[in-house]
Amino acid sequence: MTASPAELQNHHGKAAPRQRVLAASRQVDPFLAMDVLKAANNREASGQATYHLEVGQPGAPVATAIRQAAETLLADGLVGYTEANGTGKLRGRIAAHYQDHYGLLVDPARIVVTTGSSAAFSLAFLLTCDPGDRVGLPRPGYPAYRNIVRALGLEPVEIALEAEDDWLLTSSSVLEHHRNAPLKCLLMASPNNPTGSTMPADRLGDLVATCAHEGIWFLSDEIYHGLIYKGDETCALVHDSDAIIINSFSKYYGMTGWRIGWMIVPEHMVRRTEALAQNLFICPPAIAQAAAIGAFEATSYLDTLKAGYARNRVRLLETSNRLALTGGPSPDGAFYVYWPVRNLLRPGETASALCQSLLTETGVAITPGDDFDPVRGHEWVRVSYAGREDDIAVAAELMEGWFSQRA
Amino acid sequence: MTASPAELQNHHGKAAPRQRVLAASRQVDPFLAMDVLKAANNREASGQATYHLEVGQPGAPVATAIRQAAETLLADGLVGYTEANGTGKLRGRIAAHYQDHYGLLVDPARIVVTTGSSAAFSLAFLLTCDPGDRVGLPRPGYPAYRNIVRALGLEPVEIALEAEDDWLLTSSSVLEHHRNAPLKCLLMASPNNPTGSTMPADRLGDLVATCAHEGIWFLSDEIYHGLIYKGDETCALVHDSDAIIINSFSKYYGMTGWRIGWMIVPEHMVRRTEALAQNLFICPPAIAQAAAIGAFEATSYLDTLKAGYARNRVRLLETSNRLALTGGPSPDGAFYVYWPVRNLLRPGETASALCQSLLTETGVAITPGDDFDPVRGHEWVRVSYAGREDDIAVAAELMEGWFSQRA
Repeated sequence: MTASPAELQNHHGKAAPRQRVLAASRQVDPFLAMDVLKAANNREASGQATYHLEVGQPGAPVATAIRQAAETLLADGLVGYTEANGTGKLRGRIAAHYQDHYGLLVDPARIVVTTGSSAAFSLAFLLTCDPGDRVGLPRPGYPAYRNIVRALGLEPVEIALEAEDDWLLTSSSVLEHHRNAPLKCLLMASPNNPTGSTMPADRLGDLVATCAHEGIWFLSDEIYHGLIYKGDETCALVHDSDAIIINSFSKYYGMTGWRIGWMIVPEHMVRRTEALAQNLFICPPAIAQAAAIGAFEATSYLDTLKAGYARNRVRLLETSNRLALTGGPSPDGAFYVYWPVRNLLRPGETASALCQSLLTETGVAITPGDDFDPVRGHEWVRVSYAGREDDIAVAAELMEGWFSQRA
Repeated sequence: MTASPAELQNHHGKAAPRQRVLAASRQVDPFLAMDVLKAANNREASGQATYHLEVGQPGAPVATAIRQAAETLLADGLVGYTEANGTGKLRGRIAAHYQDHYGLLVDPARIVVTTGSSAAFSLAFLLTCDPGDRVGLPRPGYPAYRNIVRALGLEPVEIALEAEDDWLLTSSSVLEHHRNAPLKCLLMASPNNPTGSTMPADRLGDLVATCAHEGIWFLSDEIYHGLIYKGDETCALVHDSDAIIINSFSKYYGMTGWRIGWMIVPEHMVRRTEALAQNLFICPPAIAQAAAIGAFEATSYLDTLKAGYARNRVRLLETSNRLALTGGPSPDGAFYVYWPVRNLLRPGETASALCQSLLTETGVAITPGDDFDPVRGHEWVRVSYAGREDDIAVAAELMEGWFSQRA
């Protein structure tokens, strides 16, 4: 179908055609968890038993109140564009949640509904960072942080978390990287993915104050709020009204495939955020926005699911204890355990190959640590326990048998 | 809630706090059509009659087959992440559409389902452009082109379309801008928004060949395909298998608020596109993906809607003829008329102020041309005729009366 060079020459007279080249600077790593999901789905489609412990996705059906709210909009049949920052109704309901849950008064005008937290990350970086700016990120951490930063022409600055420091980001490690060359913003999550580590309120307050003092924007990824099994659940706004909050309906509320989240920005950023969102996304999905209002009525169902995750967590912690796969403190939140598999690897093998073999031989899908930590992750794996309890129980047994043979 | 400077000083010892500054380079204009939508929605909410001719959004309920496909997934209750490039089922169905509609064989692996064409624009720019690269765009054109380009740290190069040249982009005008400094890619739409102008196949072939020869990536926005009232509907792939195609279910298929579209990329770009999409978006909304399969079964309903747009188009062309608001050839596609209002403006007034007065005084919402053309647009307005026929009829009468008093 392409015009041949000869035709082009006829067409244009003389000069040889120039080559088209792809962008050199935007190379990002694939998100391995999504690659494992694809391999696991292929296996499942071929009729083989498959256990999904690879993605952070609740295995239970969506709450009835969420489904019904979506069905009501669908029955109406008019699923049009909404305002770019989300419907006033949903923004108002999210603001009420901040009052109910955290005792915080947040003006609904400061809430920006987004197409999942993914869109919120892009918006937050584009609001705060010029090309080339440095962005502090935890390592291990959610891999898309690093890859979005790179795709947008910014510089990811990975700050290592240490198991012996409870996998928590410290002011001193942030300042160390900031001294070399200023960080423009810091993005962190508590609870963190993949470690499940959760910041005590005082440690969070210290970090937030350090960033405020140093002129570093504080981006607080609170997507795993609602899923903390012990300890504090503190919104960074408590410590700094200029913190940028990012959250989502995907985890506690179980709305992964709907693609719906939100951010809270300082008042002076609202109009600018809206203009970016209008142009980059037009608006978040209207059905998901309508459905998300139902999410706040579904607390008793969602808390039942959370109790199931808590039991899954205990089960997997027992498994890791028996297998001596203990690489740090027990995770306080989210729905992940992060296992050191160094002692289980064969010569030359990486966690990635281990995960492939595990999937092929047992049907259990888990994610290699490389996703979360490009430096040490090849000796770690992340196991998600957001699935159904019976699935997690079978998968835990299969993993225990398979790993025992390797140990 | 913020720690006071004094507290910070206590906390950190000495230095005064540094200020946090927003990104200097990312300023983008608000998308005025969305601002008009907000004003029109506010008016409507207060109970006043309002006619939505401001956004390019079908006014009819979604097709039954689309709604039912969504309801089936909802009833199942499992609305999880899909592969980042979309479900195999939807990609296969889109590939079949290329064979049925254009006679083109497209490997489903080259199809990337996206969160509306919005996500596809970002992906296409990030795939082809390094920071600072120059992107050719039509003026007047869809305003988000320019604003996404700017937000991503690229340079928009606006290429003026002329009414006397049927509002069509020419190879010579592209080459003129390319000579100054190379263009990395060219993004254009046929039919174009806001002019409705549609490229004849031979003109498109000429432009595509020029870009191929000059090493300029050709990004073809085909979102208004299916809505051409006379003339050719040619997919750029016919002329160049390396063209990047961007399309959406929003317009002909009427799925605006669902946020679902697709792109077709050359085979060598697939893995890279997928990695970017995984990180930036995780996946397109799962409900919209399921529903979009139904869209291909809804052709007879959708063609009925199209016949309605065709009647709306004729009605508005009559209105513009009577008002002598004729600024170019009649639009062959999409669902817009673009009117020159120079002779209707009061001294110092812009199209923006005119649109506000029209909304306040008649309830008819239309969009100022500034959105589409920062140079000449203050003397133009765009009128969308995607609404219901009875609404468009009333709105046309109201506009005719109001504009006549001004002429």
